[in-house]
Amino acid sequence: MSVIMYERVGFEGRRPSPFSWRIRYALAHKGIEVEYRPTRFADVDIIKKLSGQHFVPIIVDGPKVVHDSWHIAAYLDQRFSDKPTLLGDDAGRNLNHFVNHWSDTVLSPTVRRLIYPDFIWCLAPEDRDYFRRSREKMLGQTLEAAGADRPRWQADFDAACLPLERHLGEQRFIAGAEPRYGDYIVFSVFQWARLGSPHEVVKPDTALAQWRARMIALFDGLGDRFPAYPLPQRG
Amino acid sequence: MSVIMYERVGFEGRRPSPFSWRIRYALAHKGIEVEYRPTRFADVDIIKKLSGQHFVPIIVDGPKVVHDSWHIAAYLDQRFSDKPTLLGDDAGRNLNHFVNHWSDTVLSPTVRRLIYPDFIWCLAPEDRDYFRRSREKMLGQTLEAAGADRPRWQADFDAACLPLERHLGEQRFIAGAEPRYGDYIVFSVFQWARLGSPHEVVKPDTALAQWRARMIALFDGLGDRFPAYPLPQRG
Repeated sequence: MSVIMYERVGFEGRRPSPFSWRIRYALAHKGIEVEYRPTRFADVDIIKKLSGQHFVPIIVDGPKVVHDSWHIAAYLDQRFSDKPTLLGDDAGRNLNHFVNHWSDTVLSPTVRRLIYPDFIWCLAPEDRDYFRRSREKMLGQTLEAAGADRPRWQADFDAACLPLERHLGEQRFIAGAEPRYGDYIVFSVFQWARLGSPHEVVKPDTALAQWRARMIALFDGLGDRFPAYPLPQRG
Repeated sequence: MSVIMYERVGFEGRRPSPFSWRIRYALAHKGIEVEYRPTRFADVDIIKKLSGQHFVPIIVDGPKVVHDSWHIAAYLDQRFSDKPTLLGDDAGRNLNHFVNHWSDTVLSPTVRRLIYPDFIWCLAPEDRDYFRRSREKMLGQTLEAAGADRPRWQADFDAACLPLERHLGEQRFIAGAEPRYGDYIVFSVFQWARLGSPHEVVKPDTALAQWRARMIALFDGLGDRFPAYPLPQRG
């Protein structure tokens, strides 16, 4: 029996959600058979009924329903402990959790201003109004205004990436010679930027750019399995 | 035979160096017998002759001389592998290394502006000119000018601490139920601020403040073993 994963689907089969990308990579790392169920923001009732909350990804494993990407990763590591580990021992799991917090509180809030003005065009047309309303309420400004001072947000993002650039200058993956869940967490943010906007946020010829290329290529090119940003005709 | 550690000593026995604090805690964690040799910036020739470079801390273990706090921690973990681990397995070591890079490229450059204008007064009088000259050259401005806009730098530091605050709201130490080297890396930055300046940089009643108190109390109150900032009479 395979695991079922509910994940966000965008315009014409696109997969722009960073949280779903973490779990897609985690499942590939584990080598688990998966049945994917794409959902739109408009499918919120299905998700709520299933998990009691409205975020994807969600994993259904027999009678077990798990939501929140961090909890899903921890669940998968324990449930499939005979497969390659995602998090390592207790201290390793906790350090990965710190990387998760760093990604959620620093990396994502910084990069989203570089993405949001263009992001709605990779969502399904019926999801765009919801996305705009909910994000503009959170930001207290329009998506366009939030991203208007692009050089400033790019500089903030570059500064936030300094520890990554230094770290990846010394080793192939965040976790060392081979990737683990910490790599998937951080990569998902770059995948979000890459598939959710027409702008390149990573400087060429950096350790970060090389690492991202390695991450895209993993698992038979998993990072390139879905359509890229929908240019030139928007939507 | 005990390990020898060369470390920076400040005004009247103070220990303001963050890099030495990491290693002091690492040595206490390992329970290793240590002979401490305090050095001033002015003792640079002794350090250069010993290690071929001019930074402390330095560890001397029989014929072996190790410098750079990260390399010292990795060395101690391997050399004393029968003692409690500092870094864990390979992936754990690499994640700790990421925390080290994050601390060095984000946390320290942010907090130093809150420290530098007052820091020279906890150095030995004969070290103050060197410190001022070298840091002002690096910053391209006086120590006072670098720290003048205190509310701005405090806001930057608070933002840099967000992942720590969230992480420590969920567990006692960065590494989990018990501290490991990642805790010592990060704590050393807070110890630098605490012993090197009269200003409090941590908000009371935060998870971060509670963690810092736990860190100070470790190993029979190691964090409070040396004199605090030299107020009210400066120097």
